[in-house]
Amino acid sequence: MSQAEVYAKAGFGAAAPRGKRPAVIVVDFTYGFTDTAYPTAANMTAEIAATRRLTDLARERGFPVIYTTIAYQPWEAETLPWLRKATGMKALMAGTRLVEIDRATGITADDPVIVKHGASAFHGTNLAALLTAAGADTVIVTGATTSGCVRATVVDAVQSGFIVLVPRDCCADRAAAPHEANLYDIAQKYGDVTSADDVANWLGQIGPSDRLRPRNDGEVDQ
Amino acid sequence: MSQAEVYAKAGFGAAAPRGKRPAVIVVDFTYGFTDTAYPTAANMTAEIAATRRLTDLARERGFPVIYTTIAYQPWEAETLPWLRKATGMKALMAGTRLVEIDRATGITADDPVIVKHGASAFHGTNLAALLTAAGADTVIVTGATTSGCVRATVVDAVQSGFIVLVPRDCCADRAAAPHEANLYDIAQKYGDVTSADDVANWLGQIGPSDRLRPRNDGEVDQ
Amino acid sequence: MSQAEVYAKAGFGAAAPRGKRPAVIVVDFTYGFTDTAYPTAANMTAEIAATRRLTDLARERGFPVIYTTIAYQPWEAETLPWLRKATGMKALMAGTRLVEIDRATGITADDPVIVKHGASAFHGTNLAALLTAAGADTVIVTGATTSGCVRATVVDAVQSGFIVLVPRDCCADRAAAPHEANLYDIAQKYGDVTSADDVANWLGQIGPSDRLRPRNDGEVDQ
Amino acid sequence: MSQAEVYAKAGFGAAAPRGKRPAVIVVDFTYGFTDTAYPTAANMTAEIAATRRLTDLARERGFPVIYTTIAYQPWEAETLPWLRKATGMKALMAGTRLVEIDRATGITADDPVIVKHGASAFHGTNLAALLTAAGADTVIVTGATTSGCVRATVVDAVQSGFIVLVPRDCCADRAAAPHEANLYDIAQKYGDVTSADDVANWLGQIGPSDRLRPRNDGEVDQ
Repeated sequence: MSQAEVYAKAGFGAAAPRGKRPAVIVVDFTYGFTDTAYPTAANMTAEIAATRRLTDLARERGFPVIYTTIAYQPWEAETLPWLRKATGMKALMAGTRLVEIDRATGITADDPVIVKHGASAFHGTNLAALLTAAGADTVIVTGATTSGCVRATVVDAVQSGFIVLVPRDCCADRAAAPHEANLYDIAQKYGDVTSADDVANWLGQIGPSDRLRPRNDGEVDQ
Repeated sequence: MSQAEVYAKAGFGAAAPRGKRPAVIVVDFTYGFTDTAYPTAANMTAEIAATRRLTDLARERGFPVIYTTIAYQPWEAETLPWLRKATGMKALMAGTRLVEIDRATGITADDPVIVKHGASAFHGTNLAALLTAAGADTVIVTGATTSGCVRATVVDAVQSGFIVLVPRDCCADRAAAPHEANLYDIAQKYGDVTSADDVANWLGQIGPSDRLRPRNDGEVDQ
Repeated sequence: MSQAEVYAKAGFGAAAPRGKRPAVIVVDFTYGFTDTAYPTAANMTAEIAATRRLTDLARERGFPVIYTTIAYQPWEAETLPWLRKATGMKALMAGTRLVEIDRATGITADDPVIVKHGASAFHGTNLAALLTAAGADTVIVTGATTSGCVRATVVDAVQSGFIVLVPRDCCADRAAAPHEANLYDIAQKYGDVTSADDVANWLGQIGPSDRLRPRNDGEVDQ
Repeated sequence: MSQAEVYAKAGFGAAAPRGKRPAVIVVDFTYGFTDTAYPTAANMTAEIAATRRLTDLARERGFPVIYTTIAYQPWEAETLPWLRKATGMKALMAGTRLVEIDRATGITADDPVIVKHGASAFHGTNLAALLTAAGADTVIVTGATTSGCVRATVVDAVQSGFIVLVPRDCCADRAAAPHEANLYDIAQKYGDVTSADDVANWLGQIGPSDRLRPRNDGEVDQ
């Protein structure tokens, strides 16, 4: 059997139905990954622009847009075993420019920023709680890198109970082969791999009555 | 049967053996809790001083000292359901004085600070991973408030696989009855409730060969 | 100031708005806690009956009813530090009658049972993911014991992003003082403490269009 | 720059120092994955044999050997979004032969079995707590499939504070390309990819004084 036949027999690759209350997660579009002056970075200009189109639209439609950054404290950087493998990540120290969200993303002052400590935006953070509190049922995962933090975030998102969409042109990586290999795994097992066009179209169709409106002023939902 | 007899029959209240690699967790000794100018605070002068004695000693002996603070971003504060019950906590906004660790604790620039989002220092943070990475087997929980964040941190610590010690004179609260009721629950079910004297004595006895020395420079442990 | 004034000033004790998609969590109504032949148990007949009224109604209205049990494997029982404090819990071995849900609860074959390992129904389980996947926004916590597993479950529920309701007559404990002390803490800080009557009335008012209907057959929600 | 140069510049692919207290995790060597009568399975005979050599040795040296299985309850299978993508996994129902550990692994009655609900052995389980309670500092991850549950378990292990070793001949997959692509990502970013020979040699060198000996009878460590 071909690989495609083996995977089909095993039941992988089905398209997942979408929810009605999406949130956009923008993974690690920080200067440490986007500014090629730094050794851990790559050129992500196109992926940032494609993501910005979705985040601008999501914000306009009332859906949460959440950014992530890796930002270490000194003792943490000395202690975490991940940094013995991904040694370049030790440069991502709190307070440095490397951990700031790239302004080209169009981030606004009201957007939450999750400080993460490993590959996944969920591990060791309160992202799942925030999404649940906001009533989200679907997450759109974008950012960098596809084969690292995006993959790990996607796996945790679906394990945390969310439907996952990954617009491939919104995901950046340092090299093509790992980018494609991980999109393949994601499409087969964890989330629907689609495009910014398709997600933008879908965001435009979800009506105001479907929006989640998290507020701590007495009303939970509309 | 008396309550004491009922609890003894059910097997509660046993003293737990201590480990050899402790870490001290100082919960929420931030100005929002310690400076009585703020409505969420109480006078915690004595408990801060008792805690400082332990943290100074732990640092000297090479054991980690980890502080926590609650610090919210605006969207987070609007979204989390905890803040619909504990409404006073909404004032603990990132960037304000309320979320700074009280200097009276003797915190140093090298001590890590965990930003937490609810009652427990473990929930939605990477504290368990950090303690595991550092090789800790026992946590000494101090701070404020006994009936809120200390209790929640203690329960999560033992659930996360750590032995728990709680020096009662290092734990502060707004009122005596909840303080005592929660120390009772802790002593019966989750950790040994003891004193700063006893913990200081124990920290002094653990020899250098038992110390954990987390380093990302090639060696894991001594 | 009185304790009531101190708590009011600090912003505690507010009633939380309810969601529209509740789930009922029934904590540890297993024979090890409900059959007084066992040393860890107490008479919980009235609390089981009050809970059953809510679970029967919730099931009829299409809302999830989730039971929990503590059930250990031998190596786990030898390893977990919680069992050095709560030594009586070591008897709760997988495969024994002590870990079975009491039939008096009216549990049905379709109801999920979460195997938990500590006090909280969330810690080390996939309960948060299941509730999120089901679209729940509010959890009704019942069961045993108020001062142990119910308290820990309530704290984790609100930290996980859910609104929490606790009907006091559905929560059982071994002794009155810890029961009341913990309901006080819960009411002040984590969830609304109410009655089975009030919850039943509310469940009856939430219309079919508000129900969550989790299904893996192509539709996410109604 | 070549991909190798890009990765080297970014600081990936370093060998991680090993700890002294390992545990072996055997991921999903259950009949649903190992018996080719089932559509989700593949021939894993060689990888099971290579793993058994390590688990036999680890057990003999006093190190924990922990198995995992995916086993669903009906409501869970209907609710989890992962099963909308990995639809074949819905067959892994509790009580069926598919979820039993393959006897060819040499599993013993004393070995713990973790019931997992998604790809990672850590997500929604108490595995991290168990490993921490046992004093483990290093995990050896084996099992199936490399591109799915092994990868997810590796990422969570390092994020949870453990050093990770992956003997490549102990990891099985349905197809060669995803197997290799994921071992590449693991070796670059999360854990050392090595062989059963190398791990066996290392396990043989760690002396009895380094063993962890978790016991709930009064002593924590040797």
